[in-house]
This record gives sequence, structure tokens and C-alpha cells, in this order.
Amino acid sequence: MNSEPLYEGKAKSVYRSEQPGELIVRFRDDITAFDGEKKDVLSGKGVFNAAVSAFFFEHLESHGIATHFVRMVDERTMIVRELAMIPLEVIVRNRAAGSIVRRYPFAEGQVFDPPVIVMDFKDDARHDPMINDDIIMALDLLNREEIDAIRKTTLEINRLLSAYFRERGITLVDFKIEFGKVGGAILLGDEISMDSMRLWDRETGESLDKDVYRFDRGDVLSAYGRVVQRIIPGYSGGRG
Amino acid sequence: MNSEPLYEGKAKSVYRSEQPGELIVRFRDDITAFDGEKKDVLSGKGVFNAAVSAFFFEHLESHGIATHFVRMVDERTMIVRELAMIPLEVIVRNRAAGSIVRRYPFAEGQVFDPPVIVMDFKDDARHDPMINDDIIMALDLLNREEIDAIRKTTLEINRLLSAYFRERGITLVDFKIEFGKVGGAILLGDEISMDSMRLWDRETGESLDKDVYRFDRGDVLSAYGRVVQRIIPGYSGGRG
Repeated sequence: MNSEPLYEGKAKSVYRSEQPGELIVRFRDDITAFDGEKKDVLSGKGVFNAAVSAFFFEHLESHGIATHFVRMVDERTMIVRELAMIPLEVIVRNRAAGSIVRRYPFAEGQVFDPPVIVMDFKDDARHDPMINDDIIMALDLLNREEIDAIRKTTLEINRLLSAYFRERGITLVDFKIEFGKVGGAILLGDEISMDSMRLWDRETGESLDKDVYRFDRGDVLSAYGRVVQRIIPGYSGGRG
Repeated sequence: MNSEPLYEGKAKSVYRSEQPGELIVRFRDDITAFDGEKKDVLSGKGVFNAAVSAFFFEHLESHGIATHFVRMVDERTMIVRELAMIPLEVIVRNRAAGSIVRRYPFAEGQVFDPPVIVMDFKDDARHDPMINDDIIMALDLLNREEIDAIRKTTLEINRLLSAYFRERGITLVDFKIEFGKVGGAILLGDEISMDSMRLWDRETGESLDKDVYRFDRGDVLSAYGRVVQRIIPGYSGGRG
């Protein structure tokens, strides 16, 4: 962990582990928005996102979804299986919000039933353009069967997460996940956190996610903390 | 035809006909590129595009593809069946060129086998954003069966056009088509012309389409005229 990171993302750093086939992921306190144009450091944010990610990876695993999660080392550090990441952002939308409202004639908050899946090609220099199945195959990222499998798994993840949030008074508006391959299998990777989901309080409609930061809607850390308290039974983590 | 057009496109004007269920399409000499930022008038261009469109509509009809084409009135004026147009640009790519090379890591000219289909949502104010099947269905533009039918017809059109061009020494690099509905059926509408196709001479590689205009590669009208001569047997139309 004192060594150079293998990979430095916008909010996470990834390090080699001594254990072959495993990596160490450190959730940092950096927060960014608008393709990196807005940046800040919020002390304790990484701990909240690590806790929620670890919780949901375990929740999904217990419902038959294969993930890269192995275990937590400390409150912001996670051991994961090393995957060959597929450079796609898989975005699931249960309601219209954010970019889809700007790009197409949907009303903010409009319900999508069935949910809408959009995939973006992860390429910083190209600003993560939207992609479709034909282009994914032409780029040799995935074949037809793999795309269908990812779509099916994604809808199942959406069902599990939506139900969990709903019971705790939160609407899962949309979220972004990423997958990777190891030994022929496709596993859920990356994170599932307040940075990668859009969450609305079912009673008040207020945002409990990165939109609080994007649009200066109040105390981001407090919003993230309230999600953690509502989602993780008996959570007693600090802002370490 | 002396009345106001029902609809004025970038290069075509559409008028009501006295015949119910039919419309009159006039191919104008206007040429535009880059989302309308570049504009010119090229005397005779409308005649070339009308001739090629009419020719290919008849060619496709003779091979079982339903189109809106009825007949020509004069060398730049076409009678078509009135369709409820589906606001999608259906783009077929046999080789990588243009926007797909800028947006994704493909090499210019790279062959796509199978061909790549991309659909854009026709909305000038939103600059025709790319769309996917889930969003098409969420916008209630088409259902699953209609999307599949359009994709199948589009691939068949591509096979027919590609073969026709290949025999005449031209590579059909990509093209854009539009569909509309009438009485439960989905018909090919709009146009098939040098404005809506990317064509490369198979020997010299030179562009024979709107790229000549976009990138100032020479005499646009002469390039369009050469396509007409090679495509339409015994063509003897003027620049009227």
C-alpha cells in the first residue's frame, strides 16, 4: 500500500496485493463531477462509499450474483479479485433524471417500466460516449451471448437493489455498474456507492447521492451518512 | 406546388398532393453539412439525388422491400405515399468512416463484418443524439417487434445496395435511411442519395458523396454526376 498504485481512478486507487489474483482497492475522499471539472476532498466520504459497496457486494453475493468482493481490510480498503475489466459503464434507469432528460424528451422523474439500460464506452479522452451492441461487438469487447448475460445480470441486480432501497424509504432512480472477466466468468466489479447511484428519499424527494454535490444542494457528507445509516443494519463506522 | 410546403427539410421540400394519401417531394439544390453550419446551392444537385433515389426505390421494390415511392413527376419531383415518419435515422456501416472513427477507436476504412447499425433520434434541437432500443421503446417510438423488423429490413437493403454498388466499382461505406408507418405497415421513406450515403471508388478510394462537399475535396456536382452515370443504366437526365 506504500507502493505506487496500479491504477488511480477519480475516487479510488488500486494496488497490487501479495496474494496472486487479488487487488487492494482504497476508497479515497476525492469527489468529482461533470467529467472531472468539479473536484473536492470530503473527509470521510471514502469510508461511507466503501461501507455501502462492501454491504451491497455481500448482499448481491447472497442472492447469487458473482462479484469481485473478497473482504474489507480496514474501513476504506477492500480486497477484490483481479478482473480484466470490460471498458463499459452499464447504466440502469428506473426513472428519468440527469443526462437522459437533457438528451431525449423525457420528463424528470418519469418512471421507466421496464427499466432502461444504456451502455457507455469508458474512454476518458473520448468522454465516455454512449455505445450500442453492434459497436461493442465490432470493438471485440463482448460477444452476443456475453452482452445478453450482462443485461440479464444487470436487471437482476436492479431488482435486488431497488427492493432493498424501497423497503428503507429510498427510490433507486439509476445507477452505474462495471463488469470484468476472470477465468471465463463475468463478475460484477468496481463499486456500488452514493457516487454511482442516484437515490431519492421516497417521502421528501430529496437527493441522497452525488447530485447533492453536483448541484450544491447541501451537505454531501451528511446525505451520504444518512444513506449508510438507513442501508446498513447497525452501522457504527466512523469518518476515519 | 405553388402552395406552402408542408415540411421544409435541409435539401427537400414536401407538399400536399390533391391525391389523398400521397405527398409531393421536391429535391432542392441546397446542400448542407456539419449540422447545417456549412450551406450552399449547387444547381442540378437535386436532379441527381432525385434520380438515384427513384432508381434505388424501384430497385428495392423489385426485390421485395416496401418503400414510399410512387412515381416521378419531373426530374426533381417525386410522388410518395404519405407516412407517419418514425423520428429515427437508421445508419448502416460496412466500413468505419466519419463520426464512428471520431467517437470510438476504429481505424478509418476498417471493415465491419457483420455491418454495424446505429440509430440516432431525429431532433434538430437536440442535435440528433444516438439512441438505443431501450430508449426507443421508452419513448414509445417502436415496440420490440418493430425494431427487430426494421433491423432485418435494413440489413436486407444493405445487402441489395452493397451488391449493386460493388458490381459498378463502388464501395457502399455507410448510409442513412428513415422509415415511416402507414396502415400498420412500416415502409422505407425519405431518400437514398449521395447526400445520405458514403461511397468510395473501389479502385482509387476517392469519395463520390457528400464528403466531397464536407471536406472540399473537389467538384461535388461532378462526383454526384459520375455516381448517377455508373448507377443508372442509360441515364440521360440533365441538370434541369
